Amino acid sequence: MTHKIAILGASGYTGAELARLILGHPDLSIAALTGDRKAGLEMGDVYPFLRGRGLPDLVRIEDVDFAGIDLAFCALPHATSQAVIKALPRDLKVIDLSADFRLRDVAAYEKWYGKPHDAPELQAQAVYGLTEFYRDDIRRARLVACTGCNAATGQFGLVPLIRAGLIDLDEIILNLVVGVSGAGRSLKENLLHAELSEGANPYGYGGTHRHLGEFDQEFSRLAGRTVEVQFTPHLAPMNRGILATIYVKGDPQAIYGALAGAYAEEPFLHVLPFGKAPSTHDVRGSNYAHVGVTADRRAGRAQVFVALDNLCKGSSGQALQNANLMLGIEETTGLTGAPLFP
Amino acid sequence: MTHKIAILGASGYTGAELARLILGHPDLSIAALTGDRKAGLEMGDVYPFLRGRGLPDLVRIEDVDFAGIDLAFCALPHATSQAVIKALPRDLKVIDLSADFRLRDVAAYEKWYGKPHDAPELQAQAVYGLTEFYRDDIRRARLVACTGCNAATGQFGLVPLIRAGLIDLDEIILNLVVGVSGAGRSLKENLLHAELSEGANPYGYGGTHRHLGEFDQEFSRLAGRTVEVQFTPHLAPMNRGILATIYVKGDPQAIYGALAGAYAEEPFLHVLPFGKAPSTHDVRGSNYAHVGVTADRRAGRAQVFVALDNLCKGSSGQALQNANLMLGIEETTGLTGAPLFP
Amino acid sequence: MTHKIAILGASGYTGAELARLILGHPDLSIAALTGDRKAGLEMGDVYPFLRGRGLPDLVRIEDVDFAGIDLAFCALPHATSQAVIKALPRDLKVIDLSADFRLRDVAAYEKWYGKPHDAPELQAQAVYGLTEFYRDDIRRARLVACTGCNAATGQFGLVPLIRAGLIDLDEIILNLVVGVSGAGRSLKENLLHAELSEGANPYGYGGTHRHLGEFDQEFSRLAGRTVEVQFTPHLAPMNRGILATIYVKGDPQAIYGALAGAYAEEPFLHVLPFGKAPSTHDVRGSNYAHVGVTADRRAGRAQVFVALDNLCKGSSGQALQNANLMLGIEETTGLTGAPLFP
Amino acid sequence: MTHKIAILGASGYTGAELARLILGHPDLSIAALTGDRKAGLEMGDVYPFLRGRGLPDLVRIEDVDFAGIDLAFCALPHATSQAVIKALPRDLKVIDLSADFRLRDVAAYEKWYGKPHDAPELQAQAVYGLTEFYRDDIRRARLVACTGCNAATGQFGLVPLIRAGLIDLDEIILNLVVGVSGAGRSLKENLLHAELSEGANPYGYGGTHRHLGEFDQEFSRLAGRTVEVQFTPHLAPMNRGILATIYVKGDPQAIYGALAGAYAEEPFLHVLPFGKAPSTHDVRGSNYAHVGVTADRRAGRAQVFVALDNLCKGSSGQALQNANLMLGIEETTGLTGAPLFP
Repeated sequence: MTHKIAILGASGYTGAELARLILGHPDLSIAALTGDRKAGLEMGDVYPFLRGRGLPDLVRIEDVDFAGIDLAFCALPHATSQAVIKALPRDLKVIDLSADFRLRDVAAYEKWYGKPHDAPELQAQAVYGLTEFYRDDIRRARLVACTGCNAATGQFGLVPLIRAGLIDLDEIILNLVVGVSGAGRSLKENLLHAELSEGANPYGYGGTHRHLGEFDQEFSRLAGRTVEVQFTPHLAPMNRGILATIYVKGDPQAIYGALAGAYAEEPFLHVLPFGKAPSTHDVRGSNYAHVGVTADRRAGRAQVFVALDNLCKGSSGQALQNANLMLGIEETTGLTGAPLFP
Repeated sequence: MTHKIAILGASGYTGAELARLILGHPDLSIAALTGDRKAGLEMGDVYPFLRGRGLPDLVRIEDVDFAGIDLAFCALPHATSQAVIKALPRDLKVIDLSADFRLRDVAAYEKWYGKPHDAPELQAQAVYGLTEFYRDDIRRARLVACTGCNAATGQFGLVPLIRAGLIDLDEIILNLVVGVSGAGRSLKENLLHAELSEGANPYGYGGTHRHLGEFDQEFSRLAGRTVEVQFTPHLAPMNRGILATIYVKGDPQAIYGALAGAYAEEPFLHVLPFGKAPSTHDVRGSNYAHVGVTADRRAGRAQVFVALDNLCKGSSGQALQNANLMLGIEETTGLTGAPLFP
Repeated sequence: MTHKIAILGASGYTGAELARLILGHPDLSIAALTGDRKAGLEMGDVYPFLRGRGLPDLVRIEDVDFAGIDLAFCALPHATSQAVIKALPRDLKVIDLSADFRLRDVAAYEKWYGKPHDAPELQAQAVYGLTEFYRDDIRRARLVACTGCNAATGQFGLVPLIRAGLIDLDEIILNLVVGVSGAGRSLKENLLHAELSEGANPYGYGGTHRHLGEFDQEFSRLAGRTVEVQFTPHLAPMNRGILATIYVKGDPQAIYGALAGAYAEEPFLHVLPFGKAPSTHDVRGSNYAHVGVTADRRAGRAQVFVALDNLCKGSSGQALQNANLMLGIEETTGLTGAPLFP
Repeated sequence: MTHKIAILGASGYTGAELARLILGHPDLSIAALTGDRKAGLEMGDVYPFLRGRGLPDLVRIEDVDFAGIDLAFCALPHATSQAVIKALPRDLKVIDLSADFRLRDVAAYEKWYGKPHDAPELQAQAVYGLTEFYRDDIRRARLVACTGCNAATGQFGLVPLIRAGLIDLDEIILNLVVGVSGAGRSLKENLLHAELSEGANPYGYGGTHRHLGEFDQEFSRLAGRTVEVQFTPHLAPMNRGILATIYVKGDPQAIYGALAGAYAEEPFLHVLPFGKAPSTHDVRGSNYAHVGVTADRRAGRAQVFVALDNLCKGSSGQALQNANLMLGIEETTGLTGAPLFP
């Protein structure tokens, strides 16, 4: 049985990535694509890599007939999803890829995003969409809020450790190297090839990055106390990929055991042999994540590494994994494509 | 029904690309992988992006049990395939990705490759593997010789034009921009990131590039006379992709018509609207090729553009397309994955 | 003696490159920098690589006191220089890096740039600024119009051949691989790292690129007849560099001789040994250009290659070379820095 | 007065960078270049970017006449310099760019480099070459051991803080993003463009990187106790540049004050305004380093950032700065070239 899908905001990178993935999914078909400024265009004009694949043209959201659509992915910019999703039919399953429904506490939302929440009643129903940790809730959800790509990466390295009480909660440092597609199709000087290639720089440092809202929420919930990590993402000249290097205090072997145990049955999370570190090259374009643990030379300290593709596992692949759960499809369907290398 | 496959030379890029593609193919399973210097290793150690996918370990060719194997891909370096394939069971279907069986005339082989042909009797049976032009022969073949990646790109732009007699055969200029994976996993200074990124240079210029042997063979055969093109490939700092810019003399609209007509039913070749040019970005990681035609400002001159992925459509994807034909599988199976963008 | 310099339009790439070069020039000092939208900012805020070098803050052009300034570089966008330069003091030496004064024939200007010329009387005084071919005129000029970067590259390969009557004027094909900084600091989707890196595509094809106006003007003038080249630039994922591959008909050795002879005494043009081709890697960040000639396998055909840095030799370095001439300084001063490699 | 210079090991990247820099130095001339496997070649054949600059051909070390040479840079691979330098004339000033003389304690050398020291008597005379901290010793030295590029970067961020007793010595985490030229001209698969571009990975993690020997030595000496940092370098797809992100515990404003004070008079070290972070883009190809400090959201924690060019300030530029001191030349001579951007 084929489920009909709409992608709202198909002209951004996460929307295009959803289209790419769904084209290879045997049980889903794309019934509608929306794009505000690009309404009226063929998808192949907006993204020539999708030319000739029989996709519907881009339309405005208000022109979509949602009757017969089983699930909508909402890949709109932050701060626009709340109003849009509020206006969708009540029985339509929705997966939001923006930040609009990630924070359960609307006060936290206002703190990190600088504006009041427009749909607190919907927020109350929203399930946080990190599949590996919220699988059962997602299966039953009507509205799922996919995570930030950095937030997903950090949580894969830390959730099993916090849950098991293996690390010092006051001494977590999350250092990320991040590919540029995480910034979206934004026209900014620092995202130009001429200014981004051949160099690296930190951004969102000093406790200002909005994904901290997700870390605080999830880690504090798990720990039963306030947990605040030190977090520094760095922009590197690559299009896809996030590499988290997480500095923790705890027993490296116990840490390794907790991660290896937590992910032993996970189809998309591979824990490397102890002492090996992953590379974003090895997960590019895929829904797989690689996790590694190494001991530091000083006892009681370890590095945990996580590599994933920000657009796929960190965003659109995660969203599709959730859609499979919500639609009663085998969870891995359409997501087992191997990474692209080289 | 699942067909069992061997990949000989799985430690190179085309071998790894075959593995990547076949992992997504519903009717093929990989029964054996060989690698000479890397025999004994897990495929996930040689290529971590293939970790955890249940692939067999690398073995030496002599340790492969070919009983039960339906087809072998031979992804060995040039000049080593002839001896290897000669030693394979006579009833095993073989697809060679090297240059060893591309040239029908063993004298031409010796001219371009600088050594006598080791298996002239096999050469006589080999079918030149550019699927779109040799489909029926490939279906019946036991041994198929896949084309050079540059050779494929140029032929997609020129074969229909030469066949239709639309262009001046003495005035064909083939200019290519080529990604670095075409050089294979070779340890050479000019292929290091530090020396290749952020620059471009021609190579194999002045009529010396070996793929000229294929152009000469195929174009002369079609034209019924000697056709020699002027050919300059350029190395650019990208991993995958070939962009051919072909300068021809003829009527641009007739040229466009011939290409559009020739490829109208081709599943993997998209002809863009007249006047538009393709980009390698839009075919990366896929078996699709984009073709464009533009008129020059001077009458009777045109540019024909072809963009494809050298490792996929130019090599391993082409090989898999041929394998589908040889095994009686629908030709596009396992090859319709959308390109990776960005 | 130190000459005082103003850079009008210092917030673009050519303006910043001028600042970079002049910081290393012993006889020039930067007295004023202008930037329209960025007026009021420190240069180190607009371009942190220039932080701490004692440069003046950016101001509006109307706030510059031109008394005491010996020469102004005008690095403004195309179509804005004509009005600005018209308003400058009459005795101020001016070097324009835009396209506004490159075409002697104002009708040709209107044809290629789509608007009437705003300062035809100034156009009549302007000297075309390709130093190696207009040295004496430049020395005496008040207004010099630097060339397009593509135009410079093509002319270095062709001017001596046309002058010597060595090639078929109807059969010149100019194929370029071009780095992205040539497009300036423009906020366009196709210039984003995510969309430009890892791919290549032609642009401005089919006789539409504006630098054809310069080729037509210069080649026709030299030949005494209309010469129209076929020209296709390609965008490649590199920041600096232009590689011209020029297909010509003529005797390769004679062609080589003409180029080697023409540039034997040129300080910035190196002709490689016959049969060798240059790489943009080897001129990056410098005012040097490398020229190569190879014979095709068919007699009477050759490839001429030229590599240079579009921002330096193709634009700001060329401008500074002209400034040296106009100010009576030794021509190579401040321009002999070696390329940056790797 | 011109001093004559020899570069031993000119075929590697640091040797070539020395040649590039010295070509722009008014008081030095290159009298000899050596290269073992490449002896007999022109420098322009080994590095075409240095073509046409009048450099001597490469010779073997044993063929260099050291009479008349004032100073030799030794840019040989690690573990080969000790024997070579031992054989040089006793009155020749020597600057070694390898790791062979960096560790004062020959036992520490053996621990980190896995072999006994070949020249302990020379080690006793060697001065550790981080110019900003050992200026007076360097001025008087006969043998200077330049630092590791990672080691220099980390020390610029930490030395003033440790000296001032401002940070918790047990809680220093040094996270680096490193360009690929730091690995030298090494033929390794992971350094190929195809395998390095478009991704990032940690290396030398878990307390194994040899530059830890330098950190341990310098930080412990300053602190008067053993200091061991946690250090993780990451390889990113860029050719030049190191970005250190240093996590420390201490008062951010005091930390900022100490760094700003320490470097107020330093010609090559720029401390950014408090709260700003540097980018490697802004120092590429130059001898400048940018330093930034940001407060974390939790009191008593800060991030210190340092960006420099590994080949220049981290290695060959540092060496030349030391040479200026040793030869009685103004320290900044030949080193004030602005970074290359874009």
